[in-house]
Amino acid sequence: MRRIARVTPVAWMVAAAFAGLAGTAVAQEKKGVTEAEIRYQAGASPMAGQDMHQNVNPAAPQMTKAEFDKARQIYFERCAGCHGVLRKGATGKPLTSDITLPRGTEYLKTFIKYGSPAGMPNWGTSGDLTDAEVDLMARYVQQEPPTPPEFGMEDMKKTWKVLIAPEKRPTKKMNDWDISNIFSVTLRDTGEIALIDGASKQIINIVKTGYAVHISRTSGSGRYLYVIGRDAKINLIDLWMEKPDNVAEIRVGLEARSVETSKDKKFKDQLAIAGSYWPPQYTIMKGDTLEPMKIVATRGMVVGTQEYHPEPRVASIVGSHDKPQFIVNVKETGKILLVDYSDLKNLKTTEIEAARFLHDGGWDASKRYFMVAANESNKIAVVDSKEDKLAALVDVGRIPHPGRGANFKDPKSGPVWATGHLGDDTISLIGTDPKGNPKSAWKVVRTLKGQGGGNLFIKTHPKSSNLWVDTPLNPDPKIHQSVAVFDIKNLDKPFEVLPIGEWAGVGEGAKRITQPEYNKAGDEVWFSVWSAKNQQSAIVVVDDKTRKLKAVIKDSRIVTPTGKFNVHNTQHDVY
Amino acid sequence: MRRIARVTPVAWMVAAAFAGLAGTAVAQEKKGVTEAEIRYQAGASPMAGQDMHQNVNPAAPQMTKAEFDKARQIYFERCAGCHGVLRKGATGKPLTSDITLPRGTEYLKTFIKYGSPAGMPNWGTSGDLTDAEVDLMARYVQQEPPTPPEFGMEDMKKTWKVLIAPEKRPTKKMNDWDISNIFSVTLRDTGEIALIDGASKQIINIVKTGYAVHISRTSGSGRYLYVIGRDAKINLIDLWMEKPDNVAEIRVGLEARSVETSKDKKFKDQLAIAGSYWPPQYTIMKGDTLEPMKIVATRGMVVGTQEYHPEPRVASIVGSHDKPQFIVNVKETGKILLVDYSDLKNLKTTEIEAARFLHDGGWDASKRYFMVAANESNKIAVVDSKEDKLAALVDVGRIPHPGRGANFKDPKSGPVWATGHLGDDTISLIGTDPKGNPKSAWKVVRTLKGQGGGNLFIKTHPKSSNLWVDTPLNPDPKIHQSVAVFDIKNLDKPFEVLPIGEWAGVGEGAKRITQPEYNKAGDEVWFSVWSAKNQQSAIVVVDDKTRKLKAVIKDSRIVTPTGKFNVHNTQHDVY
Repeated sequence: MRRIARVTPVAWMVAAAFAGLAGTAVAQEKKGVTEAEIRYQAGASPMAGQDMHQNVNPAAPQMTKAEFDKARQIYFERCAGCHGVLRKGATGKPLTSDITLPRGTEYLKTFIKYGSPAGMPNWGTSGDLTDAEVDLMARYVQQEPPTPPEFGMEDMKKTWKVLIAPEKRPTKKMNDWDISNIFSVTLRDTGEIALIDGASKQIINIVKTGYAVHISRTSGSGRYLYVIGRDAKINLIDLWMEKPDNVAEIRVGLEARSVETSKDKKFKDQLAIAGSYWPPQYTIMKGDTLEPMKIVATRGMVVGTQEYHPEPRVASIVGSHDKPQFIVNVKETGKILLVDYSDLKNLKTTEIEAARFLHDGGWDASKRYFMVAANESNKIAVVDSKEDKLAALVDVGRIPHPGRGANFKDPKSGPVWATGHLGDDTISLIGTDPKGNPKSAWKVVRTLKGQGGGNLFIKTHPKSSNLWVDTPLNPDPKIHQSVAVFDIKNLDKPFEVLPIGEWAGVGEGAKRITQPEYNKAGDEVWFSVWSAKNQQSAIVVVDDKTRKLKAVIKDSRIVTPTGKFNVHNTQHDVY
Repeated sequence: MRRIARVTPVAWMVAAAFAGLAGTAVAQEKKGVTEAEIRYQAGASPMAGQDMHQNVNPAAPQMTKAEFDKARQIYFERCAGCHGVLRKGATGKPLTSDITLPRGTEYLKTFIKYGSPAGMPNWGTSGDLTDAEVDLMARYVQQEPPTPPEFGMEDMKKTWKVLIAPEKRPTKKMNDWDISNIFSVTLRDTGEIALIDGASKQIINIVKTGYAVHISRTSGSGRYLYVIGRDAKINLIDLWMEKPDNVAEIRVGLEARSVETSKDKKFKDQLAIAGSYWPPQYTIMKGDTLEPMKIVATRGMVVGTQEYHPEPRVASIVGSHDKPQFIVNVKETGKILLVDYSDLKNLKTTEIEAARFLHDGGWDASKRYFMVAANESNKIAVVDSKEDKLAALVDVGRIPHPGRGANFKDPKSGPVWATGHLGDDTISLIGTDPKGNPKSAWKVVRTLKGQGGGNLFIKTHPKSSNLWVDTPLNPDPKIHQSVAVFDIKNLDKPFEVLPIGEWAGVGEGAKRITQPEYNKAGDEVWFSVWSAKNQQSAIVVVDDKTRKLKAVIKDSRIVTPTGKFNVHNTQHDVY
């Protein structure tokens, strides 16, 4: 239990950042090269060079400006994910100076170096921070938190580039690829994505993007890809080009996680939306150029207590297929915003009171209900997108992390949507058919036991009878280097374990297996074999029917692959 | 012109605060007793005793804590109305330390003491601030602006008192007054309102309220009165009691201006809403107890520039008669929020992009269109509350200040809604009938010339052919002690001037005439004769048909009367 308890919040932070994994366990394998150093060298840090006002706290230990700036950078990379930029607390505890000052430097150093059973990582003994850095951070968190700058329309416009204007782009598809079966693969540590042909497994192009791309999304028509980096940089990729590549880019803030496109049939390809972590806001853009149209702040009151929160970060966003609506999930306030994008000058929004801290989720099979994890509340919130209201709050396991979840039919209870958990080894199946199976609706109808905690993604496909469950953040190498697969036609049957890491044949190293993703036909599952940047990674393709190895994609350019997004499945929300 | 230019922003600040007049010209007549001193003595200051964090700015001139606290108080009372609590600027210029520090103390002292033709009042030479206070303020505005504390649900609940529970209140009207013709009269400097019987002119009760009550509003049924002080205290008064008095109270922030009630026929008396200046938010309460239900922050992006604003204050709020909707006007961002109050847990809002800096307004005669002044933009924004969108932005004169405006028929152009201006002597008539008079719709169809600038309120009544125009903030005593009246059947005829101040017979002093208010029948107009606290004030009642003096209400308890709200006309938005 203690191991899970200790790994969990780190894992959560990592999951929130997705690409943050290199910052924790994997970083230990980097033999002395910290992520911060890599990022300093690369100049890729989202906060680097930002002018942030330092509030001097006369009661706190003294720091030079250079020390303060270094500590600010480390805080952003290591601590902000859990504790928040303004240190109000989220998954991690609040670290405002009224709390840290009475503790004092020595206490804080011990805490930072050795961690705590309640979930604080052991940043010192893990090798992530030197003793000098631990001392630096202990002093830093006694200062007033510096507030990063705002990032409004003027800032965005300065970063906005249309590389190829819409009128200069192809008028039809100019390549022979089946673009609907392309996989967009995040290469976390190189600031790139790989476009891989689903049929031949060939790399079509390596496209320069923001840092540690969090997700890729397909436009309503299937022509465009939108990818967003952790540094809030968005790239727009045109799949009709002879060699698909960037046609526009923009930054929408200093840190971000989510991008989505208008999927209503009248608005296909017309709009994109991105949610920022900092500043806390979302931005609606033109779909074919990324021209920023409308910025909406998310600062406001927390659900329940109704106290003001200065940093309510935008977690996941999904677009409805049936109406002009974006569903925007705000983490710290626990509010779900249903944004009607049909009239940006008279913007209609429904603010649903759900639960803290909203993270990611997906549609049920009917695409009427959106299921989203409130992960530190251990709940799934169900939004009825037809009625524009909360349908239910469902209690699940410890820190649900569904990705987009998995839809299938439970033999007893009918249609269900399932999520795994970061904090325990369970998979919760929730009934999603209030008309056909009213007794099961919005209840956990079955709980499966997987290999262990540290699950990030589960996946199935309408044409499959397999349910895949990864465990990349489990501390046990046997578990994080393999995946479990359940038979959804016989859920009482024990799961099978596939040694994906071994199949990859990439030698020593972490090789955490993550993010099962189906091809368009639903007969192959792709897994990332995620090693450190200086070790070999791979993508392993499994035949869905036989559960046998089908292919291994290895290439010197496939560095630290994490998320993979099949164009068709992403476009149509097939999961 | 210079006199008008100089008085205008003071006037505007005063108007924004309504009750703030004593802080400017009137204060000069107090013979050495400043408003700040009165308020310190009375302990009535909204910000007094609030714990505000002082950010030390090492580059700024030194101040002791006592000096800082005194300056903070003066800033709140004198400066915040125009410059904003966080000094981001509104009607007044921004005063952040990046702007003030390079100017230096001597420059700032000169500016504060002597004012500027661009609108900065001459705080020193006017006698409002001593030389020592001018020096204090010059040093203060070079410090970082202290951020006042938030005021969330827990804070509100601590201030919430139900004095008489609904089940212990009368089940029918227990007095013989015609409560629909009661006037609720703000007694600005005593923290009270007077309830005056419209027929007999008798004082029914003097009710203790918040400081400098800004407005009174009637509940949908006409039973309850809601009054809000500048200190954000709301009182709920039950007019069915034998002696109408407070039955509940609450504070919704540190500073506020607006309160309104649910007027949709299904929701009469069920809800109240209040808008705060600080914190920037609105609060929805139960109508019969003031129990706070929902707080919504207004911090967000400014219309046009789409830059983040930390202090978007809630100006006026009106309730629709035809749907469950509050129209919330946010000053600094220039956004109009249409809030559907039928489901507070799934709150639907339409955010309309209008213009900065929204202030007050009223319905057109059909009650479909809401007309609101964007006063530093010199525009009236027209909201179509049926279609939930902006119908028009109409250019008018310098700093429109309509109060709720005046609806009547222009002999040539049909139905119009009119506003006066603080910054010039014009009255703008805007066509409001897009079906019957499409060519005139949302255009200034006629401009009248009044006595001078410094107008706060204009008024007519459906049964009257008079249009009354006050000028309480005009520097000329002849003008601010009288009112102009136009004949709306013959708008080319010159206005008549009635010497209301003289008719009051209250002797020497400012006796500014303000806020014409009709009785229920529409055959009497009431005017406040507003003198300093230590001088005699009065209410003068004029016969509407003959324009002759009908009655003077004088009483030692009628101290500094300002706003007057007839129960029936307020309930039904008759103006």
